[in-house]
Amino acid sequence: MDLAVANGHVYRDGTVSRATVGVRDGRIETITDDDSVAADRVVDADGGLVLPGLVNAHTHSPMTLFRGYADDLPFETWLHDRIMPAEAQLSREDVLAGARLAALEMIRTGTTAFADMYFHMDLVAQAVEEAGLRAALGPGVLVDDDDDESAVAERIDDVADFAAEYDRAAAGRIRTMLMPHAPYTCSDDVLRELSSLSAGIDRPYHIHVNETAEEVERLRTAYGTDPVLHLDELGVLDDDAYIAHGVHLSDAEIETLADRGTGVAHCPAANAKLGAGMAPVDALVEASVPVCLGTDGVASNNSLDMLEEMKLAALVAKARDRDATALDAGTVIEMATANGADALGIDGGRIAPGESADMIVIDAGEAHLTPSRELLSHAVYAATGRDVMTTIVDGRVLMDDRDVETLDAEQVVADAERAVSTAAWT
Amino acid sequence: MDLAVANGHVYRDGTVSRATVGVRDGRIETITDDDSVAADRVVDADGGLVLPGLVNAHTHSPMTLFRGYADDLPFETWLHDRIMPAEAQLSREDVLAGARLAALEMIRTGTTAFADMYFHMDLVAQAVEEAGLRAALGPGVLVDDDDDESAVAERIDDVADFAAEYDRAAAGRIRTMLMPHAPYTCSDDVLRELSSLSAGIDRPYHIHVNETAEEVERLRTAYGTDPVLHLDELGVLDDDAYIAHGVHLSDAEIETLADRGTGVAHCPAANAKLGAGMAPVDALVEASVPVCLGTDGVASNNSLDMLEEMKLAALVAKARDRDATALDAGTVIEMATANGADALGIDGGRIAPGESADMIVIDAGEAHLTPSRELLSHAVYAATGRDVMTTIVDGRVLMDDRDVETLDAEQVVADAERAVSTAAWT
Repeated sequence: MDLAVANGHVYRDGTVSRATVGVRDGRIETITDDDSVAADRVVDADGGLVLPGLVNAHTHSPMTLFRGYADDLPFETWLHDRIMPAEAQLSREDVLAGARLAALEMIRTGTTAFADMYFHMDLVAQAVEEAGLRAALGPGVLVDDDDDESAVAERIDDVADFAAEYDRAAAGRIRTMLMPHAPYTCSDDVLRELSSLSAGIDRPYHIHVNETAEEVERLRTAYGTDPVLHLDELGVLDDDAYIAHGVHLSDAEIETLADRGTGVAHCPAANAKLGAGMAPVDALVEASVPVCLGTDGVASNNSLDMLEEMKLAALVAKARDRDATALDAGTVIEMATANGADALGIDGGRIAPGESADMIVIDAGEAHLTPSRELLSHAVYAATGRDVMTTIVDGRVLMDDRDVETLDAEQVVADAERAVSTAAWT
Repeated sequence: MDLAVANGHVYRDGTVSRATVGVRDGRIETITDDDSVAADRVVDADGGLVLPGLVNAHTHSPMTLFRGYADDLPFETWLHDRIMPAEAQLSREDVLAGARLAALEMIRTGTTAFADMYFHMDLVAQAVEEAGLRAALGPGVLVDDDDDESAVAERIDDVADFAAEYDRAAAGRIRTMLMPHAPYTCSDDVLRELSSLSAGIDRPYHIHVNETAEEVERLRTAYGTDPVLHLDELGVLDDDAYIAHGVHLSDAEIETLADRGTGVAHCPAANAKLGAGMAPVDALVEASVPVCLGTDGVASNNSLDMLEEMKLAALVAKARDRDATALDAGTVIEMATANGADALGIDGGRIAPGESADMIVIDAGEAHLTPSRELLSHAVYAATGRDVMTTIVDGRVLMDDRDVETLDAEQVVADAERAVSTAAWT
């Protein structure tokens, strides 16, 4: 074997058992209770929990630079008066610094793959390649009201070019996605055209939908129907599509998502922090809508910690519905792993022979993770990203014993600090 | 000086400035921008954030043993079928092991003081003394329906004895409180008698009130009025009293709490996890009700991480009210520090000359806490307990550079593991 992860409690099919995972050529070859698997490199899980790498199904990674920049503000003020003006001033160097900072934070906190929608995506791809992470990337498409037809066509060509150039880049770890920003920033024609592109290259279609009540009301007036039903009329919803947020959904919209097999990237922290509300996540799960989990950008979270997001998802669902049985720990783990990988159309998300070796090890033996026999409960309800010891993608160790091997952590932090301290927007 | 905390960004009066804190005889003597304060011991805050030690205003510390034991269950099942039967089988040794585990977790995650309501409280006091923490302790008082008058009188005598014996124990770090469990587990006479005791020894009165909607409905029927209004009629509400939870409160109840100066220990994680709901915390703050913050017991959280609880408090308030401006970061920090100390009637909670030297240092320079100029935002929205480097109580260093100095961490974890693995209830 190239790699063995030994002495861990390995998560498979909803349960945990003591096992060693053997990896060859980037894929899991064996999961055995024989501790003595011969391998070029052995990672000692030391009694910890071995989970599939976490999949952040919705974020905007360079926004790490905006951590703490615009807290406790109304959504419209936050977006139009703070974030958008700052984004307009981000240099390519800034975006690279932010993406690298995000990559470092993700490795440290156990995220092995993420979906990213931003601009200068070639630089996000560069950060992904350097970091050794997996990602599904695409430029976000927003069409200005005053854009003429040729400008729109050029924008769509850019997106198609990005998909053509970057799909299967970074030794196959980078895949692409088609990313219309939202129904309120794209015309119906653009929404349809990107959907055709998505179908043509068999890559997912991902879009912000029904984040705030105000947005839903505006669109409902404009369309004469619920926004998700309008998207369905456009023919863009299928099982290769997934929406971000879905905070405010009618029963008919939930039924439509279920019928089409269209997923939802649930972002509980960002939805709470921006005052958007709480998605009906338990109802979505009950209706068999595939639900995955995202942190959204750091400016509305303010972290990329998927373990924290998992706890928040469970708590918010229970608080919202006043039902302690809503969204149990096992469901949340699937949302953050297999469901995420499926939504992004990428490898990983499961620990099983033949699967890509994307795994993390969560510490055991710490006070806040004791007693140790409830490791799965702790992953959701007691651990945070800081409890991740080891992060592995494609069989490559990105971090072991909390030591990041692919990025120069001090340099990444220093570059981000410099980008912020010299920025025009601060 | 006995101690200096140097090179930190020190929180005072809602803002942060680079300063060194000098400590003598357990109290803060000076806060100066002169880095060269001479002291017997110097703690290097290394650019981190120096906050008042966090105050957990509502917990049941020995319940750490139940971490992950009863997740995702309805409140009544959780309480009556799982927790209470297990508690009935806890030995004194178990309670001590659980209290020590809690103390270790609190030191590690930056809690310097806590309010604890449980049984075998002499053992919690022992753990507090060993750990070097500060606490306000009292046995919870539940009166069984079939208790006769003499049994009730004996129980109240026990509580009075505990208060007499333990107030100002552990070199003054232990204070006591009077802790009727709840209106539905104590008769009006017991509620009044404990209130008289509280007034007689000038120590706080703390009680679970209005946690679930079902409980409020039952009591409203029994009393013919809102539970808080009934407590007010009994005369037990004043500015030395504070209630835990207050998830479901009428406008009249909020007004009564405000009029009496009675506080609320807000427990957002536990209220969410048990499906109780979300307290109207922003409305309470608006009404000038003094709000502090608690984790509740680990069986309904599942951690004692006050930094995590702070983020959750802000997010839940914003999600509940669909208002991003609800409960801003500065308010949350006050809830978790000064307001907690005031509710518990203890020293600490503020960094200022003359105040007790209860302080923590939160790391800087980590990816998830970059950029570093937004340290207060990060304390609420990006840090978790694992980012606490240093914990100081009464001028004594309990942990520095994440090394706990007062407890044998390995032994504490091993004892808790043994208590659970040999327990009859597991």
